[in-house]
Amino acid sequence: MNPPVKIAVSGAAGQISYSLLFRLVAGDLLGPDQPIVLSLLESPAGMDFLDGVAMELADCASPLLHHYSCHSHPEAAFDQADLVFLIGAQPRTQGMERRDLLEVNAGIFSTQGRALNDAAKRSVKVLVVGNPVNTNALIVRVNAPNLPSENFAAMTRLDHNRAVSLLAARAGCSPGEVKGVIIWGNHSTTQYPDLYHATVAGKPALECIDRDWYEQEFIATVQNRGAEVIRIRGKSSAGSAANAALEHMRDWIHGTPDGSWTSMAVCSDGSYGVEPGLMFSCPVTIQDGRWTLVENLIIDDFSRERMAASEAEILLERDMVRHLLPGF
Amino acid sequence: MNPPVKIAVSGAAGQISYSLLFRLVAGDLLGPDQPIVLSLLESPAGMDFLDGVAMELADCASPLLHHYSCHSHPEAAFDQADLVFLIGAQPRTQGMERRDLLEVNAGIFSTQGRALNDAAKRSVKVLVVGNPVNTNALIVRVNAPNLPSENFAAMTRLDHNRAVSLLAARAGCSPGEVKGVIIWGNHSTTQYPDLYHATVAGKPALECIDRDWYEQEFIATVQNRGAEVIRIRGKSSAGSAANAALEHMRDWIHGTPDGSWTSMAVCSDGSYGVEPGLMFSCPVTIQDGRWTLVENLIIDDFSRERMAASEAEILLERDMVRHLLPGF
Repeated sequence: MNPPVKIAVSGAAGQISYSLLFRLVAGDLLGPDQPIVLSLLESPAGMDFLDGVAMELADCASPLLHHYSCHSHPEAAFDQADLVFLIGAQPRTQGMERRDLLEVNAGIFSTQGRALNDAAKRSVKVLVVGNPVNTNALIVRVNAPNLPSENFAAMTRLDHNRAVSLLAARAGCSPGEVKGVIIWGNHSTTQYPDLYHATVAGKPALECIDRDWYEQEFIATVQNRGAEVIRIRGKSSAGSAANAALEHMRDWIHGTPDGSWTSMAVCSDGSYGVEPGLMFSCPVTIQDGRWTLVENLIIDDFSRERMAASEAEILLERDMVRHLLPGF
Repeated sequence: MNPPVKIAVSGAAGQISYSLLFRLVAGDLLGPDQPIVLSLLESPAGMDFLDGVAMELADCASPLLHHYSCHSHPEAAFDQADLVFLIGAQPRTQGMERRDLLEVNAGIFSTQGRALNDAAKRSVKVLVVGNPVNTNALIVRVNAPNLPSENFAAMTRLDHNRAVSLLAARAGCSPGEVKGVIIWGNHSTTQYPDLYHATVAGKPALECIDRDWYEQEFIATVQNRGAEVIRIRGKSSAGSAANAALEHMRDWIHGTPDGSWTSMAVCSDGSYGVEPGLMFSCPVTIQDGRWTLVENLIIDDFSRERMAASEAEILLERDMVRHLLPGF
């Protein structure tokens, strides 16, 4: 067997992690021949509950789980980590302003960025899942200056999957026949799910569905899907979020299939007019564990306007936490 | 692609199902080339929440999920089902006697048995996960007289996995090196986790660990592990239970590896002196989708006494619900 891969997960006692960890232990991420080490990070208040989760992980008797450990200190949790899922974040509570939410999470993620900088493998892949993901990922990345910026991503794969699913249902095909969907921008209600480059069974998506539905329904439905799940289920998405996190990381490691791309929020190089350095969701192809931005797509005014609106929101978020972005 | 396999799940809005369904949709049970149809059964009170779960399943955009449907009537849910997970059961509430618990669940499971009898495929595999599993499975089986009794099983795989994990930890090896563990009897605190036939890396388990630990600690720890998880985690096992259900069903379909067996509670044929017809956990090998009891194991007095105690409990449970066991 290969030497184990060390996977660190923050917010390990939370709902998304509970949906993710058993799949990691079952080999869903790295396959049936790759042992893993799980390094579970939780706040001190969550450690008892985390012990219960760890008992259940042991109770799977998986030959792939080499060992696990529970931590309340990021440096210990991230020590020599190969893959990191940053899932834990402070949720918005009643009466909390968006600025307060950004501030409290910025504190958590700047600490974690410094810990990654000091302790993780230089080849570590860090996926931020805890909201607000784009800004949290920016803070982590900037606070880990000794790690390559390409090692960081924020998750928009759940939005991407929702867009694929919704388009497939409308077009009456399988999600497997949908290609070329893009989520641009912020993982928030300003995100822009773009179907201009999408195909359904090889045919341009916008020829398979009516334009009004795309403009009037599709975009808003994807943008507001998270809130709708909360409204119906009474809880935020966990199983589908964990699934998206796993798929994001799996593609990042094993690559995107030929002729298709996925959406990830990664460090902007200024392409498509987006402010360099922002974590901005865009289409990427992946090979040999490295993502490459899909360039030279034609962007019309309808799309450009929506991308700019989402960029403006990310800039606003950044400005609120500027004091935690040394040298940025 | 193959034609879809129809999988029905009861208690579909509950915690164990929430841990199971996303894994089914990801192909963990039937592999990456087998489409599935999910038929989700829930009580009328749980239908709204179930709609939220279904939204999240759609949001996985899995090419394997051919379609899904939500039901509050067992006959509709089980119509032409190939595989059935009976997870939903009434939990014990404060002040409820064991007899009351058995009675209320017997009502649910006798109805489901009749629905399976009328609606499911003749080749259906039915796994009962909702407690008390042995007696619930007996009720289901007896109320589905037109289906072969070998099509029914109750889950003791979680106990089996716990025993494997605990033995591996004690012996300092990987769970993958443990073979031949047996769970005998009832999925309850009277279960008997038997290490007499177990091996660790090919060596008899009882030569790798001390006998006192086996008799004084191991048995009680496995018997009480469920309660211990509840004590630490504050909730009953869900992720590890779903994992066990998936592994039970996967082995039932794809077979046990050469030279090893697993534990399942199946219809007793009188082997090992167990009352015929009871659903009693024992070691089975599986080939071509059919389980075969492992026969002729040598059982000493220590083991026989414990098997008999668990059988006595199952008989007691049966007697409490006898009026729901027509012709038994």
